[in-house]
Amino acid sequence: MRFSVSVSGSTRGYILEVFAAHFQLPYLGPIGANGLANPRDFLCPVAWYEDKDVKGYQVVSKFQGHLFQAEQNHSPFDVVGWHGSYVPYKYNLALFMVVNAVQFDHCDPSIFTVLTCPSNRPGTAIADFVIFPPRWSVQENTFRPPYYHRNCMSEFMGLIFGNYEAKKEGFQPGGATLHSVMTPHGPDTQCFEEATNATLCPTRVADGTQAFMFESSLSLAVTKWGEETCQKLDKNYYKCWQGLKKHFNPKWQPDVL
Amino acid sequence: MRFSVSVSGSTRGYILEVFAAHFQLPYLGPIGANGLANPRDFLCPVAWYEDKDVKGYQVVSKFQGHLFQAEQNHSPFDVVGWHGSYVPYKYNLALFMVVNAVQFDHCDPSIFTVLTCPSNRPGTAIADFVIFPPRWSVQENTFRPPYYHRNCMSEFMGLIFGNYEAKKEGFQPGGATLHSVMTPHGPDTQCFEEATNATLCPTRVADGTQAFMFESSLSLAVTKWGEETCQKLDKNYYKCWQGLKKHFNPKWQPDVL
Amino acid sequence: MRFSVSVSGSTRGYILEVFAAHFQLPYLGPIGANGLANPRDFLCPVAWYEDKDVKGYQVVSKFQGHLFQAEQNHSPFDVVGWHGSYVPYKYNLALFMVVNAVQFDHCDPSIFTVLTCPSNRPGTAIADFVIFPPRWSVQENTFRPPYYHRNCMSEFMGLIFGNYEAKKEGFQPGGATLHSVMTPHGPDTQCFEEATNATLCPTRVADGTQAFMFESSLSLAVTKWGEETCQKLDKNYYKCWQGLKKHFNPKWQPDVL
Amino acid sequence: MRFSVSVSGSTRGYILEVFAAHFQLPYLGPIGANGLANPRDFLCPVAWYEDKDVKGYQVVSKFQGHLFQAEQNHSPFDVVGWHGSYVPYKYNLALFMVVNAVQFDHCDPSIFTVLTCPSNRPGTAIADFVIFPPRWSVQENTFRPPYYHRNCMSEFMGLIFGNYEAKKEGFQPGGATLHSVMTPHGPDTQCFEEATNATLCPTRVADGTQAFMFESSLSLAVTKWGEETCQKLDKNYYKCWQGLKKHFNPKWQPDVL
Amino acid sequence: MRFSVSVSGSTRGYILEVFAAHFQLPYLGPIGANGLANPRDFLCPVAWYEDKDVKGYQVVSKFQGHLFQAEQNHSPFDVVGWHGSYVPYKYNLALFMVVNAVQFDHCDPSIFTVLTCPSNRPGTAIADFVIFPPRWSVQENTFRPPYYHRNCMSEFMGLIFGNYEAKKEGFQPGGATLHSVMTPHGPDTQCFEEATNATLCPTRVADGTQAFMFESSLSLAVTKWGEETCQKLDKNYYKCWQGLKKHFNPKWQPDVL
Amino acid sequence: MRFSVSVSGSTRGYILEVFAAHFQLPYLGPIGANGLANPRDFLCPVAWYEDKDVKGYQVVSKFQGHLFQAEQNHSPFDVVGWHGSYVPYKYNLALFMVVNAVQFDHCDPSIFTVLTCPSNRPGTAIADFVIFPPRWSVQENTFRPPYYHRNCMSEFMGLIFGNYEAKKEGFQPGGATLHSVMTPHGPDTQCFEEATNATLCPTRVADGTQAFMFESSLSLAVTKWGEETCQKLDKNYYKCWQGLKKHFNPKWQPDVL
Repeated sequence: MRFSVSVSGSTRGYILEVFAAHFQLPYLGPIGANGLANPRDFLCPVAWYEDKDVKGYQVVSKFQGHLFQAEQNHSPFDVVGWHGSYVPYKYNLALFMVVNAVQFDHCDPSIFTVLTCPSNRPGTAIADFVIFPPRWSVQENTFRPPYYHRNCMSEFMGLIFGNYEAKKEGFQPGGATLHSVMTPHGPDTQCFEEATNATLCPTRVADGTQAFMFESSLSLAVTKWGEETCQKLDKNYYKCWQGLKKHFNPKWQPDVL
Repeated sequence: MRFSVSVSGSTRGYILEVFAAHFQLPYLGPIGANGLANPRDFLCPVAWYEDKDVKGYQVVSKFQGHLFQAEQNHSPFDVVGWHGSYVPYKYNLALFMVVNAVQFDHCDPSIFTVLTCPSNRPGTAIADFVIFPPRWSVQENTFRPPYYHRNCMSEFMGLIFGNYEAKKEGFQPGGATLHSVMTPHGPDTQCFEEATNATLCPTRVADGTQAFMFESSLSLAVTKWGEETCQKLDKNYYKCWQGLKKHFNPKWQPDVL
Repeated sequence: MRFSVSVSGSTRGYILEVFAAHFQLPYLGPIGANGLANPRDFLCPVAWYEDKDVKGYQVVSKFQGHLFQAEQNHSPFDVVGWHGSYVPYKYNLALFMVVNAVQFDHCDPSIFTVLTCPSNRPGTAIADFVIFPPRWSVQENTFRPPYYHRNCMSEFMGLIFGNYEAKKEGFQPGGATLHSVMTPHGPDTQCFEEATNATLCPTRVADGTQAFMFESSLSLAVTKWGEETCQKLDKNYYKCWQGLKKHFNPKWQPDVL
Repeated sequence: MRFSVSVSGSTRGYILEVFAAHFQLPYLGPIGANGLANPRDFLCPVAWYEDKDVKGYQVVSKFQGHLFQAEQNHSPFDVVGWHGSYVPYKYNLALFMVVNAVQFDHCDPSIFTVLTCPSNRPGTAIADFVIFPPRWSVQENTFRPPYYHRNCMSEFMGLIFGNYEAKKEGFQPGGATLHSVMTPHGPDTQCFEEATNATLCPTRVADGTQAFMFESSLSLAVTKWGEETCQKLDKNYYKCWQGLKKHFNPKWQPDVL
Repeated sequence: MRFSVSVSGSTRGYILEVFAAHFQLPYLGPIGANGLANPRDFLCPVAWYEDKDVKGYQVVSKFQGHLFQAEQNHSPFDVVGWHGSYVPYKYNLALFMVVNAVQFDHCDPSIFTVLTCPSNRPGTAIADFVIFPPRWSVQENTFRPPYYHRNCMSEFMGLIFGNYEAKKEGFQPGGATLHSVMTPHGPDTQCFEEATNATLCPTRVADGTQAFMFESSLSLAVTKWGEETCQKLDKNYYKCWQGLKKHFNPKWQPDVL
Repeated sequence: MRFSVSVSGSTRGYILEVFAAHFQLPYLGPIGANGLANPRDFLCPVAWYEDKDVKGYQVVSKFQGHLFQAEQNHSPFDVVGWHGSYVPYKYNLALFMVVNAVQFDHCDPSIFTVLTCPSNRPGTAIADFVIFPPRWSVQENTFRPPYYHRNCMSEFMGLIFGNYEAKKEGFQPGGATLHSVMTPHGPDTQCFEEATNATLCPTRVADGTQAFMFESSLSLAVTKWGEETCQKLDKNYYKCWQGLKKHFNPKWQPDVL
């Protein structure tokens, strides 16, 4: 697939490339025939061409993990017509029909899956694309932020704009966190204290933000650029959990129902 | 399976018998590994026996749609121990972890599936057991009651206690409605008018009620007892929709976004 | 689905109604990603409505094998918009991309499958819709007409216009033949004699005709109207095979290769 | 599996070794129960042995990509009898029952699949063995040679004897071409010009030749021997497309039908 | 399929006709690639014909549950050659490679499955053909005869020759028992008493007998001929269990291990 | 999963770590609903915690094939409660319900599968855990020890206590043998001679021993420690087959049956 990207000013973005399969809408299960990302909201281009002779048009291709460059004397954007279903598409995340718990308990974050690229093993994804969209939060008797967990997926989170609900400081738009397979993690100390003591009435969550997650059953390697060259690594990240205190009381009993 | 039912006073209940397969938890899809009815909340009995000689103990069996009766001289409740997974179970509907839309749109009612008895054709159920549990309703820009629809399933609804949200009058606990395959239906006139004009803030729905649905891809026949003998048929049911008015305006335009 | 049919003059047609599943394009196997009926050639309507008050508009519905009739005071054609993929469609049979043997042997007629309605048993169809389109016939060392066979499918053939290649007389447009499950059949005597003795050069077949087949793994019942009332049954059909002679010679040997 | 190869004179051949699975006949889809390579035409040996003491019989084995050599004092060909279905087999390519388009359009080359070795991902092959057999070509209003394309498979083509239809010069028996995954390719200039201007009547194709393709969803690495040592690399291969001219005319309109 | 049966003297046999699918070898699971009925032991005929003109040759066919009779003037046994895999076959039950428990416990009778005709629901058979072959019985600390059970299959048992192990009297060769779906059954009183008190050393079982079972997930109807006309119904069958005594002792404890 | 291992004295054991999937019970096929390792015999712990502050508690973790060590100031054994099905478990091998041939022939060793970790390719395991339990051996007209074979699995055998039946000397408890994919192997000379000449009456096998096999469709690499450092490699292993003699007689005929 040939594409060009035109930007103005300094620009950052996130790219996820998957191998072996394609992204598809998740099978919705009891959510039914409608919900989450609806097929009708994905937009794809019509055929388009420019019949243009260009001296030294450079095309950069990726093949087997390497970049190759070739020159040609005409534009590669010459699609006069096409049939089939492999097309570039775009999707407005604001159209995501959000589903979540409306009585008690915290849903698995898979409830926010926009697209999934399934692996050969049923139930395991090469990658899921998950968002944390603006929504009502109404669960009662529940710890509402993401729970503390370790799991069998790599979680790469990014933030497009706004503040992420579980870590209000130090996680900027254009930034990213990576929690590798089986690495335990959860909200920072401040978030834990606030959520534990909050009165749980209906509240809007994530208005004005756009956080997302690339989640994979594979481990993600970080490039040397990412670990060193860019000098953006937050070496104090672990400290956000240092203030958490032990609350365990072996003598605690539930109230009589 | 042998069972006896002990009741005190006049008592009504609902029974659903399925053939060809068993009820199972639905595959949750993006809801994840937890949610809706959780496996840990189903309770089953331990082995139990009564070592009792009883003269003329009558056992009524159902075989091929007919009832047979036999006498024996001891109690049939003689299970000293067992292995396996075919057991009677009970489930407290209040433990259903309710999931629903928390931004906009009305979810398919399958979102409330407690148990499903799948047919041989993937995606089609011999019967689903669905409930309408107490929950928060927060959807914005949405018609919140069940939408008007016709579908490929028979819908048998019942009410255990309280008032059903989409038909507040004329649908009593112990009663039932049946909307057959491809029969169009939806809320009554009063419910439509109220829901259309309501201000959509977070609201509790169905508190103090317990409505449910048996939904099947097969047509359900009504017995002569149900249609005539019992003299309980509501012959004016169709009138609940008579007051609905045409609201269509071909010149209507959405507001500019 | 509501529809009305407008015809002018005396008109005949064929209708096939399937239960339990829907028609779909067959999985093409080695034919690849393109071929036979291509998805892009199926046309479906856009949303359409008539906002019309009509006194005594009669709608006839079919439910559980019976016809019901109701009156309403407006047109049922009120689809202002819709989402989803269950729509009426039409397909121009002339766009069928015909595939067949191009060296020797006679392909199974499934090679002409336009649409299939699969049953629950893989490889077995509730019904296939098959056509015999205009095409080149080039097989060498082969008996080119349909071979003599009995099979596990009911074959209902019809002719829209022209002459059917394997029975040039007595099979008129608007007519039909039915060969039930496991009933042996094949070309008539004249067709056999001609095909056996013909020189096999490339020939156009079925130009100017449009024959088709409804093929089902179920047995088809013929109505009393079809067997008697219509007085169109061809009681001499079996005679078309009476002239076939025994050609078996136990002493025959293939030529030395 | 032990085997020995006896040749006389200078000899070349093609070998394809697959891992993880075995070759099997493709599922035929609408082609039906018969066609392409038929099971009955695969020949396998009967049990055979030589009860022979041989001093220093050398057996070369391949294990984990390496060759090992051992000596033993008897012949390894000692199969006195066997049960099972893993056997060497041979197949006469002339018995391939060729299927192709007989009205218009160019079929996907998968239509010529002899054997496929499926991967774990449905629809994706570790390798397909495809041939381009002698056949009638009758498609009308169609560019008959292989179309210009790039695809998700590696295409390794070889020629056993004769001239390949899409590249009459420079592609000799015993030679091979490799078009890697996603590399665009198609007929040479001469083939394009001839096919574009030819009158499309029924024509025999590929008589007296035997070209084939090993097609894989994996990338094929070329050994140093293949790239350099053998000195057989055709460094001017790309020039066969240099003569292709732009034929695009944005003002072109189809004739009125 | 055409067949004729030639018998001499008074003859009885068992016939099982299945619909919707064919008999096949069961998937062996941990038994592995070999065992139970091995594919190599099924024998099928070679092509055979009689080129015979016969006046008034009567052929009786079964179609849709009815018998039809036709006359023709030649033998129907005219198979000069054939390709494919739908053939009549025979299998010598003595070649069944018997597998069973060799340490403790009683295996499910499915361990003796010769052929199964699967239904559309995985794990459920239209019919299984099961035998009780001559074998060693060595289980220790186990009740060795068939255990008392009720199950979701109809069990039709027959005896070809010898004495059936679990009911030595009253079950003659050529006879049959039918235990319908969910009907409890098990060995007769004598068998129970002997097996409970026997010393469990290695013993030959079923030598000189040939019992079998047709087991189906469907209910089997008995014809009027079978219930009345033949006058062979054993009205005292139930008495074989009358002598069974209660052995339950609520105070029983296992010996200390 | 956090665990600690406490041993007393010098101790050896076997560990098998699988990737990509989990161990599960094999699908039993005709063995039925019960047999081999029964679900009820797997034991798992209840939740357990120690609420203990420990200075410098060292936790060693394995991640991506490397070991990492961290210090913390409290015990990691703090499971106060849990839900779900991923738990450590133990199984008493003496409870394995052994199934085997009880008339003739030698079953595939898969008949002894305790647990299997399936790969993505149906029928192929990442690893099987197989045991050779105490049992009766009763096959007649059969070579009872493991047969000579080469197969597509790596076989890693170990011995927990006692003597292995097919190699009585030189295979000690705590030792192991590895027969790689496609490496031919079988009993040693002594075992062959004894088994060939033995009278085949019912015999107890493997009493007082506990041998097992890790079997994998993947090749197993041996570490440098295993090949050299430990100095435990049996360089004379191959000699156990040197004494095997040729018994083939081309003129041998089976006795007339």
